[in-house]
Amino acid sequence: MRVAYNEQMDELTGLLGEMAGLAGVAMERATQALLQADLPLAETVIEEHDKITELGAVCEEKAFALLALQGPVAGDLRAVVSGIQIVADIDRMGALALHIAKATRRRHPNHVLPDEVSGYFAEMGRIAVSLGAATREILETRDPERAARLHEEDEAMDDLHRHLFTVLMDREWKHGVAAAVDVTLLGRFYERFADHAVEVGRRVIFLVTGKLPTLEDFHTMQQRVDKLTVYPES
Amino acid sequence: MRVAYNEQMDELTGLLGEMAGLAGVAMERATQALLQADLPLAETVIEEHDKITELGAVCEEKAFALLALQGPVAGDLRAVVSGIQIVADIDRMGALALHIAKATRRRHPNHVLPDEVSGYFAEMGRIAVSLGAATREILETRDPERAARLHEEDEAMDDLHRHLFTVLMDREWKHGVAAAVDVTLLGRFYERFADHAVEVGRRVIFLVTGKLPTLEDFHTMQQRVDKLTVYPES
Repeated sequence: MRVAYNEQMDELTGLLGEMAGLAGVAMERATQALLQADLPLAETVIEEHDKITELGAVCEEKAFALLALQGPVAGDLRAVVSGIQIVADIDRMGALALHIAKATRRRHPNHVLPDEVSGYFAEMGRIAVSLGAATREILETRDPERAARLHEEDEAMDDLHRHLFTVLMDREWKHGVAAAVDVTLLGRFYERFADHAVEVGRRVIFLVTGKLPTLEDFHTMQQRVDKLTVYPES
Repeated sequence: MRVAYNEQMDELTGLLGEMAGLAGVAMERATQALLQADLPLAETVIEEHDKITELGAVCEEKAFALLALQGPVAGDLRAVVSGIQIVADIDRMGALALHIAKATRRRHPNHVLPDEVSGYFAEMGRIAVSLGAATREILETRDPERAARLHEEDEAMDDLHRHLFTVLMDREWKHGVAAAVDVTLLGRFYERFADHAVEVGRRVIFLVTGKLPTLEDFHTMQQRVDKLTVYPES
């Protein structure tokens, strides 16, 4: 039973990591497509999105089979339940990358972004890609300290997002309302991508420690991250 | 075992329904606060948001206990797993109502919305509140036909959302970029609220039928809703 559980859980973990990897790649490509008004690359993100959704369905099935056939308890049960919740977050990360790719396609051959804000998006994209990679790493290593550090990158994303709004709201904004609407939504997509990565981190902390950190705890954890000691339940 | 399962599952169902009810009330109040620039009402939504989050945590604990202690299988297992996934959607519905209340507070004593678009938001709010109530009803009755009909209301929301964008993008828009940014985000919050209600509906269909409808199936179901026959697994 235990051996079967371990094998199947490893498989589920691998698939979740793969799914996070795909979402990260989608975000990387979507950002590049956005910045360079690269239609073929945007199309690739759009075409490959189904892979993420399908992998999500496979993960849910595996998790369900694990619960049904192995009857895991305690920490093992937490790991499976967290896996199910994590699927929803990664699925959403993929959908946000898809939205960015679709915005690029919608405005092609024009650039969606005025030059003035493309630096913000390059940086938000960089953070999002890093968060995607970190999400994959955390799923595979279950390192709660690394998971807690996701919050730092999310804060950097939030800062950029706030700055972006000050640029938009500035009287000097010369690009009209339509561009402002696009920039507003795109900014939100990057910010939400980061939020979902943080949520995956919280779930991983839960599955390792048995405690689900609130966002407040998370904030405190992040402040104390160098001193953080988490005792995985044995 | 079976009696204990039923009792605990009924309790979980009741709590999920209650949570959906709170999210619906939050959305109703947030919309009224938004339309009337009613600061005390916005503050009420903000203060009471924690109740939704706390109820979500209680639901997760109950679901976890159910899995750990009752070891449900087949349809019973699906019901519990769906319950866990539904918590995340309702939690998010509450968070979106919170965002609307916060926008109202941020701009007070000014109105967030130019008069020109407040009719759209009154209508989007009406649909959102109806979806909130329907979500509660569906959780409590597990009626898959009613769940499939959520998609219709979501389509109405999407239509309004699209029209709202045409108003924003119109050259006649005289309210500047800051108002456009607010309207863009608020419109998105209503649209996402509806999406999450639809997602709850999909989960309820899954727990009753054992099949998770894709959004495409859902669309087809909605078109055939009068003829829809779903055979709950016995």
